[in-house]
Amino acid sequence: IDQKNETEAKAKVEHLHAADIADILDELNTEEAKYIFLLLDADTGADVLSEIEEDDRKRFIKVLPIEVIAKKFIDHMDSDDAADLIGGLSDEKQEELLSHIEDVETAGDIVDLLHYDEDTAGGLMGKELVIVNENWTVLTCLRELSRQAEDIDEIYYVYVVNDDGKLIGTLSLKKMILSPTSAKIGNIYEPDVMSVHTDESDEEVALIMEKYDLVALPVVDSIGRLMGRITIDDVVDVIRDEAEKDYQMASGIYEDIESNDSIWLQTRARLPWLLIGLVGGIFAAMVIATHETGLSATPALAFFIPLITAMAGNVGVQSSAIIVQGIASNSLGIESTFSRLMRELGGALINGLTCSSLLFLSNYFYSDSFALTISVSVALFAVMIFAAIAGTIIPLMLHRAKVDPALATGPFITTLNDIVGLFIYLSIGAYFYSMI
Amino acid sequence: IDQKNETEAKAKVEHLHAADIADILDELNTEEAKYIFLLLDADTGADVLSEIEEDDRKRFIKVLPIEVIAKKFIDHMDSDDAADLIGGLSDEKQEELLSHIEDVETAGDIVDLLHYDEDTAGGLMGKELVIVNENWTVLTCLRELSRQAEDIDEIYYVYVVNDDGKLIGTLSLKKMILSPTSAKIGNIYEPDVMSVHTDESDEEVALIMEKYDLVALPVVDSIGRLMGRITIDDVVDVIRDEAEKDYQMASGIYEDIESNDSIWLQTRARLPWLLIGLVGGIFAAMVIATHETGLSATPALAFFIPLITAMAGNVGVQSSAIIVQGIASNSLGIESTFSRLMRELGGALINGLTCSSLLFLSNYFYSDSFALTISVSVALFAVMIFAAIAGTIIPLMLHRAKVDPALATGPFITTLNDIVGLFIYLSIGAYFYSMI
Repeated sequence: IDQKNETEAKAKVEHLHAADIADILDELNTEEAKYIFLLLDADTGADVLSEIEEDDRKRFIKVLPIEVIAKKFIDHMDSDDAADLIGGLSDEKQEELLSHIEDVETAGDIVDLLHYDEDTAGGLMGKELVIVNENWTVLTCLRELSRQAEDIDEIYYVYVVNDDGKLIGTLSLKKMILSPTSAKIGNIYEPDVMSVHTDESDEEVALIMEKYDLVALPVVDSIGRLMGRITIDDVVDVIRDEAEKDYQMASGIYEDIESNDSIWLQTRARLPWLLIGLVGGIFAAMVIATHETGLSATPALAFFIPLITAMAGNVGVQSSAIIVQGIASNSLGIESTFSRLMRELGGALINGLTCSSLLFLSNYFYSDSFALTISVSVALFAVMIFAAIAGTIIPLMLHRAKVDPALATGPFITTLNDIVGLFIYLSIGAYFYSMI
Repeated sequence: IDQKNETEAKAKVEHLHAADIADILDELNTEEAKYIFLLLDADTGADVLSEIEEDDRKRFIKVLPIEVIAKKFIDHMDSDDAADLIGGLSDEKQEELLSHIEDVETAGDIVDLLHYDEDTAGGLMGKELVIVNENWTVLTCLRELSRQAEDIDEIYYVYVVNDDGKLIGTLSLKKMILSPTSAKIGNIYEPDVMSVHTDESDEEVALIMEKYDLVALPVVDSIGRLMGRITIDDVVDVIRDEAEKDYQMASGIYEDIESNDSIWLQTRARLPWLLIGLVGGIFAAMVIATHETGLSATPALAFFIPLITAMAGNVGVQSSAIIVQGIASNSLGIESTFSRLMRELGGALINGLTCSSLLFLSNYFYSDSFALTISVSVALFAVMIFAAIAGTIIPLMLHRAKVDPALATGPFITTLNDIVGLFIYLSIGAYFYSMI
């Protein structure tokens, strides 16, 4: 690359898959990447543009002349990828780019797609569809197919519409190949077809496609007219992003970051949760301070502060993770909040009894203060029960209030449980020390 | 259902998708489910059997006569689903069931599939393939297609093999429809085809299909012969399971559990991590005990124990989550451990300075002991730096030692950081109190 040996670089790059080229461009600086990129033919270039990460793409589009992008690449991209790309630009640039697209139909499709929110079915869908009318014969159909299929990489389904453009079913290629050419589509199509509305959320789309094992899902407007289709590869990204987002939230990372993002981005995503922890810690200090006299009398009570807070945190995180995952995979089912809470309480009883019995035994043999032994065990049990209840109820309540329940996991629940756990522990400690 | 009104129940169930029927059966008791299940026709029944959860399926197969399962359903299932189902039975039952399958070819396919590990490409793949020879013409091909396609729901790709059965390319249905019937397959097929070896891990398969946006991926043996194909719907499950597993590990849940599993299962998955936390807490108590005299002299030092442990845990969990996700999505790239650590340290410096300055200010105004103020802030900074290093290095080391790095997240890293954090805090506290 350094020596700008054009033919050699071109030969090397040509045999690679677009996704691999995108990986290589990611490692290069802007100038080098631009150089390689301009070597690619239009089709590959379009694929690479769809594959590279969003930050890289923006950086890239800045250095390439907008006319080149429009003429050379947009025409060769799937409409949903093109809309994603253009949607990331400023209004001004959008207009300039659109004006350079030669094919009016393509430009129209992209403008249509730009109307939808990125995280709805409309934002996910593409306009590349093979559509046949129910009144056609298989022969007309085959002829139309070769015309329509020109711009489409893969045909997963052929959609059947009526004269109003409303989706009424699908036609499998297999069925079409096996039917006589004079057969009418209306008689051979499959009328059971699942579809989603353009406003459906991307998470719901992912759940539907996953549940019914679909590779493509048609999207309709409010009166049932076929507007586009969503393919499984776009949904795989939604599924992974969703699962990663919940995990990141639970780990105290607020924005969607990658392991190779800049220090600044990573810091910004992490600091807010750390500040929550900091404020929580200061509150915890205030809770302990109210028991200062008790602590100077029996400093041994302080020994078990980390144990109590750690266990409260662990139980809370476990309980909330189960709820958050249940909500994400839509497997909570019809069970009521109450019965779910009862089940969680059952588990907390078993785990709480086990842990506090073990702690009791350990302290009984190693500690010389029976008051300490009994307070720590009773407090541990009480704290674990409370943490399980809080970890179950808070995400369920947030979900009902239409707030992302993942917010309640990780640092948030840990901090809350720390403070309440300490309060319970020190109160129980004070009670037993005054008794015995 | 209670009144066993057969026709009505049948009518209701018939119009539902197999995945919905599976959901309904999940909510019923075994007798009711069996009753509904026997109402279904063979095709739907087979689909439902593939869709229901593994525990339900086992319960189910126990109550149904094995001959009925074999004759009525296995014949109608995809070979990969059938192998999954049969693989879950005892050896004895497996043989009995296989002996009842009428179609020898199907039984042979299933026996072949049973040889592969569940979490390899071989375990994921199905035998439903449309295979054409490079020497055929499009006409032979179309004829063969109608024969082979009989048992297959959807054709994604037609695979092209040479006379030795080795995979040499794919043929798109579109291309076949648009080519003259006398054209030779060898001249129109697409030679670039991605494939995986039967021993490839399921996670690797998921990464490949996700990266290259594939809906189906052919599987070959060591000499390149086509053995089967993996479809995207099986891989979507792998992707979600993988992401969920990392999240569950980080939340201290060891086995893969669902929100509606029994109390006993949930308890068993959670207790091990709680015991780690318990032992860690006892160690932490021992660390504090060594500073008992210091604590009775200045009990205020105990106030900030929860703050220090909480921040150590939060930072450690954040750092390890970034590494674990990077490994899972294969996006760590070529960056070395050293430069990754430097980046993490940079972030830890910014966050550590921010948090300890804020804590310093807060304590400066509200606490009357300057020794406490300075110890707590310095200790917080040191602990955050340590936690970031441990959270980065430990999962990377585990990954290099071929151990699942997710093990190092959650309770494990929290407990470790608690103990080391306390040690750092109390040592620094003792130092400053003796100084000032």
